[in-house]
Amino acid sequence: MTTQQLIDQIKIKKSFLAVGLDVDLNKIPKHLLELEDPIFEFNKAIIDATHDLTVSYKPNTAFYEAYGIKGWMSLQKTINYINTTYPDIFTIADAKRGDIGNTSSMYAKAFFEDLNFDSVTVAPYMGKDSVEPFLAFENKHTIMLALTSNQGAFDFQTLNVDGSRVEVKELYKQVLETSKTWKKSENLMYVVGATKAEYFTEIRKIVPDSFLLVPGVGAQGGSLSEVCKYGMNDNVGLLINSSRGIIYASNGTDFAEKAREEALKMQQEMEALMSLKFKKV
Amino acid sequence: MTTQQLIDQIKIKKSFLAVGLDVDLNKIPKHLLELEDPIFEFNKAIIDATHDLTVSYKPNTAFYEAYGIKGWMSLQKTINYINTTYPDIFTIADAKRGDIGNTSSMYAKAFFEDLNFDSVTVAPYMGKDSVEPFLAFENKHTIMLALTSNQGAFDFQTLNVDGSRVEVKELYKQVLETSKTWKKSENLMYVVGATKAEYFTEIRKIVPDSFLLVPGVGAQGGSLSEVCKYGMNDNVGLLINSSRGIIYASNGTDFAEKAREEALKMQQEMEALMSLKFKKV
Repeated sequence: MTTQQLIDQIKIKKSFLAVGLDVDLNKIPKHLLELEDPIFEFNKAIIDATHDLTVSYKPNTAFYEAYGIKGWMSLQKTINYINTTYPDIFTIADAKRGDIGNTSSMYAKAFFEDLNFDSVTVAPYMGKDSVEPFLAFENKHTIMLALTSNQGAFDFQTLNVDGSRVEVKELYKQVLETSKTWKKSENLMYVVGATKAEYFTEIRKIVPDSFLLVPGVGAQGGSLSEVCKYGMNDNVGLLINSSRGIIYASNGTDFAEKAREEALKMQQEMEALMSLKFKKV
Repeated sequence: MTTQQLIDQIKIKKSFLAVGLDVDLNKIPKHLLELEDPIFEFNKAIIDATHDLTVSYKPNTAFYEAYGIKGWMSLQKTINYINTTYPDIFTIADAKRGDIGNTSSMYAKAFFEDLNFDSVTVAPYMGKDSVEPFLAFENKHTIMLALTSNQGAFDFQTLNVDGSRVEVKELYKQVLETSKTWKKSENLMYVVGATKAEYFTEIRKIVPDSFLLVPGVGAQGGSLSEVCKYGMNDNVGLLINSSRGIIYASNGTDFAEKAREEALKMQQEMEALMSLKFKKV
C-alpha cells in the first residue's frame, strides 16, 4: 500500500485507528477455546466487526510466537484473511526487529514477502545498515521505534547525546534526525507513545510529514485529543493504536459486538478531531 | 543451564565457540534441497560434526522466519534435536527481541518455554521494563546488545550521553551500567562485536564477570586473539560466534566434514589462547 492510499482510507473512513490484535488465550472468551484455531477465530470476529471503523490492524508477533508453530499459523491465517477480505486495510507486523544487514534482509523477506504485511516495526539501536534493508522494499513501510510509551523509554531514549556536534539533544531526536539521512527514508514511519504527548511538538519539528504510530492511548493513560493537538499534520499523519481497550471489551459471546462499540467510540472521537483540525486549516 | 555449567563445558571442551546456524537455502549444498526439511538436515549434519568442538549453537531467527511456518518447524526441530541429543550445549536464540513488559513476557515464554532455549538476545532501546521480563526466568540467560559488530553501531551506540549526570560516556557504556541495576541482572550477558576489540578493556571495567557473546570474528574482520587479550576473564567469559566461516566452508557433499575442520581450527586456537591466559594467572 502507498502512503497516499493510506491517507485516502483515513479520509474515507474518518478514522486513523489501528486495532492491535494481541491475542492472549487467557483473555479471550472461553467458548472459542473449543474451536480448532481459537486465535484466528477471535481475530476474524474482531476484524469482521470493526473493519469499517479502522484503517489498520496490528498483530504483535510476540503473542503468536508464544504459541509456537500453531501461533505462527494463526498469524498467517489472520494476515491472509485481512489481505483477501479487506485489501484496503494497512497491515502492521509489530515485530520490533533489527539485525546486521543480511539478517535484516531476511526479516524484511519474512514480513514483506512471506507474510505480505504492508509494514513492520523495527528497533533503531543497531543503526543504518540494520534498517536500510527494510527500506529497500517498494510500497512497504518501516516503522521505527523513536519514543516508546513505556516507563523504560526514560532509561536511554531521553538521554542527551552530542551526536550532532552542534547542540546537545535527546537520543530519540537524534534517532529521528539520523534516520532521515538513510537511503529510501521516505519509507519510514515512527513509533511515538501517546503517554508522552508533550513531546509531539518537538518531534513534528524534525519529522513534519511522517506518519507516527501511537500506542498508549487508553489502558496506558495517553490522551487522544492531546496527541492530535500536537501531532496531527495536514494528512492526519497519525495511526492511533488501541489493543486491549477494544479487543477485550467483553469476554462473553458478545465480544465482537462490544469491540465494535469501543472502536466506534474511538472512530467518532477521531472524526470530531479531524473536523476540528481541518476546519481550522 | 546455569552459568557454572556453561563454564564447566568451556573447560572440558577447551572451547568457547558458538556456531551460528544461519541457514540460507541459497547457500547450502544442492543435494539437500531434495529432502523434506533441508534446513533441519543441514543443521543436524553440522551439529553432529561439530558438537564436541563447540559449547553453543546460535540459530538466528531471521533465517527461519524468512521461510514462514516451514522455517519455524525447522527451528523447532533443530532446538529439539540439540536439547535431546547434546544436552550439554548452551543454546542461543538470536532473536534481538524487546517490547513493553507484558509483550516481552510473551517473547520470553516463546523462547524459554515453548522452544526451550537457554538464552535469547534482546535489544536495549526500550529500557528496563522491556528486558526484566526475560530476566525473571530461572537458569535462563538474556543476552543484551551493547556494542554490535556492524558499521551502524557508530550511529547511536557510541554517541556520548550524559545519563550518569557525573561524566559523559558513550551510550553502550550507559546501557551496560544501567542494566546492572535491573532486577535479576545476574542473568544478563552482552553482545559485543569482535570488530571493536579496542573497546573490550573499557567494557570489562563495567562488566568484569559477565559473559560476552562476540560476533564478527572471521568474515567481518575481527581478531580472536585481540578479543581474548582484552576481553577474557578468569572464567573465560566469552562466547565467540562464527557462522558463515564454519557452516559454509564447503557447499559440496563434504560440507559437514569441512565445517568440522573449520570448527577444529577455531577450537585449537581457543585452547591455545586459554592455556596462555591461565598459565599467566
